[in-house]
Amino acid sequence: MNAAIIAVGSEMLTHTRVDTNSLFLTERLNLLGVEVVQKVVVGDQREKLEAAIRYCLEHSELLILTGGLGPTEDDLTREAVGTATGREVLFDQGICDALIARFASFGRKMAEINKRQAYVIDGAEVMPNPNGTAPGQWLSLASKQIVVLLPGPPGEMKPMAEKEFLPRLQKMLPPLALSTATFHLTGMGESDVDALVAPIYKQYANPVTTILAKAGDITLHLRSQTKSQEESDALVAELGSKIEAVLGQWIYSRDGSPLETAVLRLLVERGQTVAVAESLTGGMLGARLSGVAGASKAFVGGFITYNNGQKQGLLGVDPWVLAEQTEVSEPVAQQMAAAAREKSNAHWALSLTGYAGPDGGTEENPVGTVYIGIAGPDGYLKAQRFRYPAGDRDRVRQFAVQSALNMLRLALS
Amino acid sequence: MNAAIIAVGSEMLTHTRVDTNSLFLTERLNLLGVEVVQKVVVGDQREKLEAAIRYCLEHSELLILTGGLGPTEDDLTREAVGTATGREVLFDQGICDALIARFASFGRKMAEINKRQAYVIDGAEVMPNPNGTAPGQWLSLASKQIVVLLPGPPGEMKPMAEKEFLPRLQKMLPPLALSTATFHLTGMGESDVDALVAPIYKQYANPVTTILAKAGDITLHLRSQTKSQEESDALVAELGSKIEAVLGQWIYSRDGSPLETAVLRLLVERGQTVAVAESLTGGMLGARLSGVAGASKAFVGGFITYNNGQKQGLLGVDPWVLAEQTEVSEPVAQQMAAAAREKSNAHWALSLTGYAGPDGGTEENPVGTVYIGIAGPDGYLKAQRFRYPAGDRDRVRQFAVQSALNMLRLALS
Repeated sequence: MNAAIIAVGSEMLTHTRVDTNSLFLTERLNLLGVEVVQKVVVGDQREKLEAAIRYCLEHSELLILTGGLGPTEDDLTREAVGTATGREVLFDQGICDALIARFASFGRKMAEINKRQAYVIDGAEVMPNPNGTAPGQWLSLASKQIVVLLPGPPGEMKPMAEKEFLPRLQKMLPPLALSTATFHLTGMGESDVDALVAPIYKQYANPVTTILAKAGDITLHLRSQTKSQEESDALVAELGSKIEAVLGQWIYSRDGSPLETAVLRLLVERGQTVAVAESLTGGMLGARLSGVAGASKAFVGGFITYNNGQKQGLLGVDPWVLAEQTEVSEPVAQQMAAAAREKSNAHWALSLTGYAGPDGGTEENPVGTVYIGIAGPDGYLKAQRFRYPAGDRDRVRQFAVQSALNMLRLALS
Repeated sequence: MNAAIIAVGSEMLTHTRVDTNSLFLTERLNLLGVEVVQKVVVGDQREKLEAAIRYCLEHSELLILTGGLGPTEDDLTREAVGTATGREVLFDQGICDALIARFASFGRKMAEINKRQAYVIDGAEVMPNPNGTAPGQWLSLASKQIVVLLPGPPGEMKPMAEKEFLPRLQKMLPPLALSTATFHLTGMGESDVDALVAPIYKQYANPVTTILAKAGDITLHLRSQTKSQEESDALVAELGSKIEAVLGQWIYSRDGSPLETAVLRLLVERGQTVAVAESLTGGMLGARLSGVAGASKAFVGGFITYNNGQKQGLLGVDPWVLAEQTEVSEPVAQQMAAAAREKSNAHWALSLTGYAGPDGGTEENPVGTVYIGIAGPDGYLKAQRFRYPAGDRDRVRQFAVQSALNMLRLALS
């Protein structure tokens, strides 16, 4: 089956908005073996919206529209689908009563305008929306095509897709056995990874391999779909083991977890904890670690020592070393890590000090240079120098956090 | 003039890719008074691509295609535009020679396949591509419509748009004088902001007003285009002052700066500094503040006290209060702020303690509850309770950071 997705709403045609709903839908549709063959974004003009619907129905068996189901006069999806498919749009007292009850549960009276949301295309099934006022609709056409209306806000669209739309769709489709594998890597550039593994994965049309990269972090995804689970699993296992053989040491997770989750898991397994001492990253490493639910089992906290006064005052870094070696140096990174470990009573501590830019840096240590320290049990103490591409302050900081997490991962494994 | 944009390429229909080219183009087109009325993404299938071109030409005066200009058999934009507009596609020896010379300059011989890139739609003007092998094309149709072919990679598309496409387009358009205003707000929900200002801005078709919201942060953008600069400026000033009269106290910047920049600026003006003490946010507030270039003028650092041991050990929070009132309470937030201020020698300190979820929380203070403390000069010390929508751990933390920054902004202004 192939599908088209229309994002409805003039705000989606501005330069600040991207249709991310279609990415979520594409991912889920692909898992069911449905291919998205076109995507359209169109504003709140009835004529243009009707034309887009007609155009997509000429080329697709499944048409999904997101947005335009609100209560205002700008919300025209219901009416446009009705006109384009030659069906009336009818008032549904049941939906209206449910809307009134929903408003009443917040102690509010439903505005007259919300009655617009109680209209249903003739013959469509209603998909309830527990997270908002716009119900979805599922319409089967005589042509065997399906038109689905979903709300625009992702917080309403996604749960409705998961609970209502996708299960209905899955019932109609031939069962496909899916097998996937995900490898998360760090410590290598995207082009280096690709150079190593492209000669391998290009030999396979199935599984499909995708590579996704962001600052210091690479995801390799394998996906195989055949009629038998055994065959899909075998294909993924075969390609997966060839990739592991090449990339093994750089792979930090195989279950989709981010690096900070992998590191916290290693700590929890050992019953150990980690603290941080951050200069150029100003709290980003702590924010990453504490972003994981349940992080408190292994992450205790630490210090943000953004200036030299704090490095001395909070961590007791030697003022002579700061003056002689500058704050971006191996001994300072080591002293920061050792002090953070001691003062926070953690088993491990990571420290970061460097030049994020745009200003700062020396001839020896230009912008993009970061020293990362690590202190651990039994006097374990070292610091490593990293050099990242300068120019984007935030990117330097992201790279540094990634490297710090990876240093701890390697020390733990 | 209105425009349609087609992004060509099967990779643009995967769940990991977003068409960002169209955002850049939309921004630039809007500045010339050209409105984008539809966007389409279509794969590398000739029939579907031709249909998309025909569909867009039915609804737009200007059609821009990005991508599909490469040398492989998948690159079909030239041929599809030719067929859809009823024109031949002709070999151009000049382009071919330039391609050969380009390859030679890298010490390489042009592959035979690259000859495909030397084909030009009959009647089209060629737009050179100094950053790649695919030249662009500009085609004026008898219908007065314009079709523009641009390469897909942003690093080639953007310079070509800037140097070739947009200047050509601008010459055809009546000159327009642009005036804009941007208001950044926090402390109010999007719907509350809209309820206050919609009755005002809806009276103006020009300026165009757009509202953009993310966790605890709202941007109002006004844009006016008329034939005279005076008139555009006057329209923006008129609507802008009406909006300021209603939203004044919530506006934290008028120049596009984010909240942390506005706060740091207020501190620098006073020659003051700020420290942080973060529990549930684990360093996010420090990361926000230190993300601003030059932050060290006012941000000194602070403490990440993710568990109660750190709250006691690093900040000296009273263990009795922790036990009696729990760590998510007004007195703990106050003690954290006061101690962070004192220990870091800063003029101000902000503290955050709360339940980000998914676990934790009490009947009185469920997940989503955050206490934010602020300590300042002359014994200034208070804490405020916030309640954010639970369910998304990261969103609760983002809201909390935004509220903390806003508390300091209000205290400083």
